[in-house]
Amino acid sequence: MMIVMQPDATADEVAAVVARLRGAGADVTVVTEGGRTVVSGTTEGRLQDEAPWKDLPGVERVVPSVRGGRRVGRGYRHEDTVVMVGDVPIGDGSLTIIAGPCAVESREQLLRTAGAVKAAGAHILRGDAFKPRTSPYTFQGLGKAGLECLAEARELTGMPFVAEVLDPRDVEMVASYADMIRIGARNMSNHALLREVGRQPKPVQLKRGRAATVEEWVDAAEYIYNEGNTRIVMVERGVRAFDPSVRNMLDISAVPLIEQRTHLPIVVDPSHAAGRRDLVPALAKAAVAAGADGIMVDVHPEPHEALVDGSQALRPEAFADLVGELQAVARAVGRRV
Amino acid sequence: MMIVMQPDATADEVAAVVARLRGAGADVTVVTEGGRTVVSGTTEGRLQDEAPWKDLPGVERVVPSVRGGRRVGRGYRHEDTVVMVGDVPIGDGSLTIIAGPCAVESREQLLRTAGAVKAAGAHILRGDAFKPRTSPYTFQGLGKAGLECLAEARELTGMPFVAEVLDPRDVEMVASYADMIRIGARNMSNHALLREVGRQPKPVQLKRGRAATVEEWVDAAEYIYNEGNTRIVMVERGVRAFDPSVRNMLDISAVPLIEQRTHLPIVVDPSHAAGRRDLVPALAKAAVAAGADGIMVDVHPEPHEALVDGSQALRPEAFADLVGELQAVARAVGRRV
Amino acid sequence: MMIVMQPDATADEVAAVVARLRGAGADVTVVTEGGRTVVSGTTEGRLQDEAPWKDLPGVERVVPSVRGGRRVGRGYRHEDTVVMVGDVPIGDGSLTIIAGPCAVESREQLLRTAGAVKAAGAHILRGDAFKPRTSPYTFQGLGKAGLECLAEARELTGMPFVAEVLDPRDVEMVASYADMIRIGARNMSNHALLREVGRQPKPVQLKRGRAATVEEWVDAAEYIYNEGNTRIVMVERGVRAFDPSVRNMLDISAVPLIEQRTHLPIVVDPSHAAGRRDLVPALAKAAVAAGADGIMVDVHPEPHEALVDGSQALRPEAFADLVGELQAVARAVGRRV
Amino acid sequence: MMIVMQPDATADEVAAVVARLRGAGADVTVVTEGGRTVVSGTTEGRLQDEAPWKDLPGVERVVPSVRGGRRVGRGYRHEDTVVMVGDVPIGDGSLTIIAGPCAVESREQLLRTAGAVKAAGAHILRGDAFKPRTSPYTFQGLGKAGLECLAEARELTGMPFVAEVLDPRDVEMVASYADMIRIGARNMSNHALLREVGRQPKPVQLKRGRAATVEEWVDAAEYIYNEGNTRIVMVERGVRAFDPSVRNMLDISAVPLIEQRTHLPIVVDPSHAAGRRDLVPALAKAAVAAGADGIMVDVHPEPHEALVDGSQALRPEAFADLVGELQAVARAVGRRV
Repeated sequence: MMIVMQPDATADEVAAVVARLRGAGADVTVVTEGGRTVVSGTTEGRLQDEAPWKDLPGVERVVPSVRGGRRVGRGYRHEDTVVMVGDVPIGDGSLTIIAGPCAVESREQLLRTAGAVKAAGAHILRGDAFKPRTSPYTFQGLGKAGLECLAEARELTGMPFVAEVLDPRDVEMVASYADMIRIGARNMSNHALLREVGRQPKPVQLKRGRAATVEEWVDAAEYIYNEGNTRIVMVERGVRAFDPSVRNMLDISAVPLIEQRTHLPIVVDPSHAAGRRDLVPALAKAAVAAGADGIMVDVHPEPHEALVDGSQALRPEAFADLVGELQAVARAVGRRV
Repeated sequence: MMIVMQPDATADEVAAVVARLRGAGADVTVVTEGGRTVVSGTTEGRLQDEAPWKDLPGVERVVPSVRGGRRVGRGYRHEDTVVMVGDVPIGDGSLTIIAGPCAVESREQLLRTAGAVKAAGAHILRGDAFKPRTSPYTFQGLGKAGLECLAEARELTGMPFVAEVLDPRDVEMVASYADMIRIGARNMSNHALLREVGRQPKPVQLKRGRAATVEEWVDAAEYIYNEGNTRIVMVERGVRAFDPSVRNMLDISAVPLIEQRTHLPIVVDPSHAAGRRDLVPALAKAAVAAGADGIMVDVHPEPHEALVDGSQALRPEAFADLVGELQAVARAVGRRV
Repeated sequence: MMIVMQPDATADEVAAVVARLRGAGADVTVVTEGGRTVVSGTTEGRLQDEAPWKDLPGVERVVPSVRGGRRVGRGYRHEDTVVMVGDVPIGDGSLTIIAGPCAVESREQLLRTAGAVKAAGAHILRGDAFKPRTSPYTFQGLGKAGLECLAEARELTGMPFVAEVLDPRDVEMVASYADMIRIGARNMSNHALLREVGRQPKPVQLKRGRAATVEEWVDAAEYIYNEGNTRIVMVERGVRAFDPSVRNMLDISAVPLIEQRTHLPIVVDPSHAAGRRDLVPALAKAAVAAGADGIMVDVHPEPHEALVDGSQALRPEAFADLVGELQAVARAVGRRV
Repeated sequence: MMIVMQPDATADEVAAVVARLRGAGADVTVVTEGGRTVVSGTTEGRLQDEAPWKDLPGVERVVPSVRGGRRVGRGYRHEDTVVMVGDVPIGDGSLTIIAGPCAVESREQLLRTAGAVKAAGAHILRGDAFKPRTSPYTFQGLGKAGLECLAEARELTGMPFVAEVLDPRDVEMVASYADMIRIGARNMSNHALLREVGRQPKPVQLKRGRAATVEEWVDAAEYIYNEGNTRIVMVERGVRAFDPSVRNMLDISAVPLIEQRTHLPIVVDPSHAAGRRDLVPALAKAAVAAGADGIMVDVHPEPHEALVDGSQALRPEAFADLVGELQAVARAVGRRV
């Protein structure tokens, strides 16, 4: 049960509600946001009765508890959520393929790649205009100019595109261009950003943080869902581990775990997991076999010249071969192709 | 060497500079920020000669390379940086003790704790008004009202205070109250926030991310430093590991590593590392012995009633005992007490 | 190049060889084993000439260097190694299925499980008579009586069996019963045991240690290979990680990495990775899609009564369903079924 | 409660005991070892009554449960265990310093180092004659000849020595030379070796495995204790983590955890944790401040010529300085020096 206080409720009024809930044996938490305080008590039947609560001073309304603990949980909604990106579905039983360069580097590079991945069977274009880089002195993306290139590529190929957003102040702008926006791994726990993308209508990719458990990642999705945006796709891209053979260790068990615990689609990014192109095909096939709803792959026409993460990008021809292999595996596990 | 392009430089002009740098054998990166593109080439002597570069179309000026790779590095500045928080120094060879509740929960709780930690020997008050919580349904802090309580506590005790900021849009407001602002572990790679705190004058605590290597953490500090704010204190608070005995594994080796690699002070937070109060004294003493410039400890007058992280907070009496023990260890390792 | 000293070579003679190798610029290591000292120098052409070395006092013979660094490496042998277990191949392009109870608990339990997994399509029976358990007070296996049950199951079903060995003094005895012996994850770096299984002729499964990099695991295989036993199968079973959702994190990238770096077959054990049966089918399919030569699965007729690891064992019916699914995926990735 | 069966008890008799315990609601485990089966049931009062159990067919005797779960636990024995190594105590409130080369490389190297560490204040000499190395082609130790050098160094300096044992078949031999024997990190879960050192009287150092939780490490100690050898010293030496700045991440929280949970002494090895000498002093001081009973440090007269782990060894002069610093910290935390 959540007790939403009036905007002008005093600290004493909040304290009185908290004290009364605690007196009733509840485990209480208090959230203040947007000038409004929400007091939450645990879900015991006897607390649910609105009668005593809505009449306390400063209380605006009482909200019954979420079934199953989280709105993104299977307990809250049993049916699979299908997320539409433009006219492309993710999570409907088909295999959605997202491909493109890690970063938009130039109009020519992007249009060339977009045409190639479209021809090879991709459904959604990826390409970032804002890149979160470890060092401030490396290429950080073309910004708005990059988004304009992506919009042009959409025009030419008919594919919708997904692009990352890094700053809550850029969400509206990025969403005005992109068909889907992405929260990257570094920002999985950036709650200001999660809330902001939750307040706009474009679908969202939520990458797993490098040190996040599956539970923490699902909680991050709840931050978005709780703001009203239910169009969320989870993206597994590997976690931090100790073996330098790979950049991140792809947690393949996250695929069935997300499927069990949430009603959201799950996509796997083998490129950012491995950090090296030679492992991408094996990891992508594994992800499809494990039940992923989609695969997101870095493709670059000239990987050795890429400004960002060139070592993990497939050449267009290798990507075309991979699409065929992924379709074969998808059929083998009963997915529509 | 960095080549700063004119604001109206065209993509073709940028590409020409990149091509020429590459032709000269440089490893090139391109950054666009604030409407201006910066092309960086590796630091080879023959590239440093400004002559050919500053005359290329679209080039505004040429900046010689940073010595030692990073401005926060020992190679760039040999002397220790001493960060003043109000009139309290961190990094001057003394041991700075920061203490207070994890979160400000009420005026009474804060003032009571502030008085107790001051009496026990703390120099700086901690207490957060904005809390980054795993779930959106748990207490998120009192917001601005919390900052006002902190300001009142400062008035009463004379201690400056440090408080966390979560959203780049709140930086100015939090900085208008606090003597020092903190970037938490979840936001270590939130570059929009790093840049924003880098553009204001209050000193900054930068916590290490749970999955960050020491190198990545130092790179995050460089994002702040590069914006002009040189008053940075690094805070080690444990990294993600596999043993459920502790919430995070305190990486004690980070203390000498930060001292070697940067000129910035290093503080250790044993409370958020262990996540349990019984280990806090041992970890705090270890940190001082390893060379930490300061210790930051959670203290709560009634830990079992805390809204956030009560299990890790020391009671005021235990904290007072600990301060005496820390001073003894500090003296043993040659620190001024 | 390795210089094998005579059994009665003196320490001074060894030292003289070492000094001369170092004088020639070599990086030198010294191994004493079985009463005989071996001095190894780095592989530079000019060191390879036997002439000056074999005439030094105390030298018995000179062995030229291993091509490619390791005998299990692709550089040493390009062709895939096919390991025969009884008359069942592993690594010949087919998919080998190994199944049975984690531990032999009784004759009845084993024979019932063996019959069921054989009927479902398994090729090799698993079942351990010696179990390495975290606590000394839990079930440690039936010992020799368990091996006798396994031999009886082989008689009845025609399937060869694999069983773990824990003690170098038991290797001969276990090998006298089993068709294949296993080194478990806990013993991956138990060199006395690795050498002992390397000195007998039965094929060996080598499980990856929980904290081992792929390189360290390959080095452990080299300990076996170097003793003369070339019949080694690598078994990926997950590594230690931070997410309590699974017991170990299956490192799916190990499948293509082992295929690239060694000529040995690779099998995946999804049961010991996940530690929970609901994830086993997804992980097993992922492993086959990634290129595994075989899958090893825990099956138990009454998982809730199992003495060891019951929560991860499939019931026979679920296993039978899984075999069909694995065959479909195997066909999709071009494996013979 | 443990029910020890007669040596000739039949499988049916064991099964009957198990069934009856389960019928009484117990969680049952069965251990067969040394030709004798032990059935264990959970510690419920009503099971403890010997009456019904000792009369069942095949039962030899009934053993009441261990208090507190484990014999190495504080619940079983409240007082600190003091382990004597020769005439040197570990765990009596003093600070015990163990030092020497990682490996015995030659008589000259060992005697020179032993003299130096003795002069600097070391109490126990370390130096291994059997080295567990990742690759079979690197120096594996001098074997018995190395133990003879160690015995000579003891003669000359009066210091007892500790040496590692790798093979259960070597335990008797190593123990016949050494004053204390060590189980290394790679063998922490090598139960055959744990049991063998548990059956001989010399004190034992038990290093923590690289992927072991504190609980698993304590369970490994129980394997030794349970065989009758109660002279166990725990050695923390870092665990596997993701930051390549250090070889292992020293888990400083293990010091207070071992002190809380067991009655055994705890020693820290900063050399094998860091893998680099520049961090050794800071880590060693941290360990003493956290409450360690001793420190074990690699010292080598010519680190750049060491055959094993030279990069982590201190020169004798640096070690002498460190001893003084450690004594100052030890005094500051109330340890007798």
